[in-house]
Amino acid sequence: MGRPTRARYAAGQGLSPVPDLLDWPSPTASWGVAIDPSWRTAVHLGVDSFVSAVFDPSAGRLIGPAERMEHLLEEIALADEVGLYSFGIGEHHRSEYYDSAPPVILAAAAARTARIRLGSAVAVLSAADPVRVFQQFATLDLISKGRIDLVVGRGSFTEAFPLFGLSLADYDSLFEEKLDLLLRIRESEHVTWSGRHRPPLTGQGVYPRPVQNPLPIWVGVGGTPESFVRAGLLGLPLMVAIIGGEPRQFAPLVDLYRRAGAQAGHAPEQLQVGLHVFGFVAESAQAAADTIYPGWHEMFTKVSRERGFAAPSRAQFDATSGPDGAFFLGDPDTVAEKLVRVSGQLGGVDRISLQMTNPRLAHADLLRGIELLGREVAPRVAGS
Amino acid sequence: MGRPTRARYAAGQGLSPVPDLLDWPSPTASWGVAIDPSWRTAVHLGVDSFVSAVFDPSAGRLIGPAERMEHLLEEIALADEVGLYSFGIGEHHRSEYYDSAPPVILAAAAARTARIRLGSAVAVLSAADPVRVFQQFATLDLISKGRIDLVVGRGSFTEAFPLFGLSLADYDSLFEEKLDLLLRIRESEHVTWSGRHRPPLTGQGVYPRPVQNPLPIWVGVGGTPESFVRAGLLGLPLMVAIIGGEPRQFAPLVDLYRRAGAQAGHAPEQLQVGLHVFGFVAESAQAAADTIYPGWHEMFTKVSRERGFAAPSRAQFDATSGPDGAFFLGDPDTVAEKLVRVSGQLGGVDRISLQMTNPRLAHADLLRGIELLGREVAPRVAGS
Repeated sequence: MGRPTRARYAAGQGLSPVPDLLDWPSPTASWGVAIDPSWRTAVHLGVDSFVSAVFDPSAGRLIGPAERMEHLLEEIALADEVGLYSFGIGEHHRSEYYDSAPPVILAAAAARTARIRLGSAVAVLSAADPVRVFQQFATLDLISKGRIDLVVGRGSFTEAFPLFGLSLADYDSLFEEKLDLLLRIRESEHVTWSGRHRPPLTGQGVYPRPVQNPLPIWVGVGGTPESFVRAGLLGLPLMVAIIGGEPRQFAPLVDLYRRAGAQAGHAPEQLQVGLHVFGFVAESAQAAADTIYPGWHEMFTKVSRERGFAAPSRAQFDATSGPDGAFFLGDPDTVAEKLVRVSGQLGGVDRISLQMTNPRLAHADLLRGIELLGREVAPRVAGS
Repeated sequence: MGRPTRARYAAGQGLSPVPDLLDWPSPTASWGVAIDPSWRTAVHLGVDSFVSAVFDPSAGRLIGPAERMEHLLEEIALADEVGLYSFGIGEHHRSEYYDSAPPVILAAAAARTARIRLGSAVAVLSAADPVRVFQQFATLDLISKGRIDLVVGRGSFTEAFPLFGLSLADYDSLFEEKLDLLLRIRESEHVTWSGRHRPPLTGQGVYPRPVQNPLPIWVGVGGTPESFVRAGLLGLPLMVAIIGGEPRQFAPLVDLYRRAGAQAGHAPEQLQVGLHVFGFVAESAQAAADTIYPGWHEMFTKVSRERGFAAPSRAQFDATSGPDGAFFLGDPDTVAEKLVRVSGQLGGVDRISLQMTNPRLAHADLLRGIELLGREVAPRVAGS
């Protein structure tokens, strides 16, 4: 199989896993997509956060929203310091998350950092006005001097729909139409456009214009095949949220994206793929599991209840944290190995962001996890 | 008259002008409003900016938007450092201003500052969704640990209306309705509301909640009497934009606000008044005028052309910069004296923010102006 062993990674930093990755039998190779290794020499690692309310088990108290925001900014500053590639902020409109206004949080982060890329994870475009979204992210791009990625999606939760007076029956058309308008605004300062879900534009200018031209706009997708095809046809980079199941099951969908992109004439380097996954790193696999399980159980119990699923068990936690599961949990070697393996299973990806949100994770533990990800894991998955 | 002379101010810092101020014949005193001196012992000074594009005369080139944003953040950091009370960011949707997304800019400013209050100047509420506005400013309040003032208004320019598909025929009802919703959201986490200009809310929660409870919401007004009355009846603090004419002419309107507030049963300390005026401070009156005039002329020529007014002249500039004009320009003594006098003419105000936006003002000159405002002018207008 050519699969890298833990022993090989244990040899230390600077080892490039990329040749191994490309030696693997790629699930996409037999489906007619030629993989050009020259543009897939590194997996960039990042962190995503939903800025959840946290009950700090070490302090025995709930961290209030202002303190939580201060902690978040320290986390982002540390991610920048340890050389991580990106930090993303989600968007939710619920009492247990403090991320209803991601561009505002990202601006504070931009002022506190120097190199790290900052982005949404994801901005719920369906419920927003693309003019405002572009204005906010272009402003962010100015503040950060070109470090912004705007990742747009339909969102995993649905609470934005009633809050902004939208119907779930328009779930698809809202996103499609608003993405179309967003791309038009990116393309041209003055826009003429009309659609069903937003008043028309008749040549108005949208300001400011960003530093990056074009401002990177990624499409955030879950498991809907049509979403992968749409992103490919548009030639937009793809951010795949993998929050359950086995990551390798996404290979056919990622392939679908690449084939759609190739058929539409987009160059392979334009068809970047990123993954958004749950994960956490600690000194040992046992410490990682013990630190994460209480919050994982709380979070997934809540979501399962809302969505009518069975409550999660410790056995499920162990399975999802295992070699083929969707949770990237463990010591640096284990996580690095899994990241490289999953990237290979999906034909080589450009970025992976670990979502470390956990309502029972102490600030110090999260900082340590970020530090390990940056100092120990990232060098092992980065190309030379 | 008890009017402070320049000679008295020239004696230096620490001189409290407040007793003089209260000795003046107040234009409001004869109209039945009792002024309680105990809650009006200081005029807090701030700076407002529209983040205009700048052609730097010393460098002979246009400052690009990313560099301009960096300069702005340096200006705000300096305002914080020299002890100014507040910094406000406008909202425009035009090519020559970079402030279409004020909460994003303010968040970066919050991360760069420690004490200064930050706010909008003004947020164009008529064209926005109050849910989003509250979410953004509550997030800002968390990031800044309670240093936010949300000043909402209808805006002086009208370009937001076509951009967001709104009709100027709804100019009044849009603002009134959205202000009503904004106040409901501030009052209660869960909101039930319906209106003409925004989909209804049926008990949805709006998050996050701010540090300050209540989040300060000011009403920004121009010269419309109804706006003064509305703010007074609601018991909301009032920010008066004085961009032309003579400030003392606003006395009857400010009095109208106070009378409306008193009649509605609001305590005097709740009925704060702030002024937003154009201004600039330099070492000498001559230097201030020479530095400011080219940009003033450019800015007002453009606005006059758009609004069908005659082009401005140097004589108008000199008049507006004089003792009774709306432009607070000059050396520290002159500006301090004028600020105190105008405050007195309006019955004593709580805050005055100098809008220093000028498309021909070099960054170094603007920094110097902020420093003089904070170190020289502010101590002369502050109560002991």
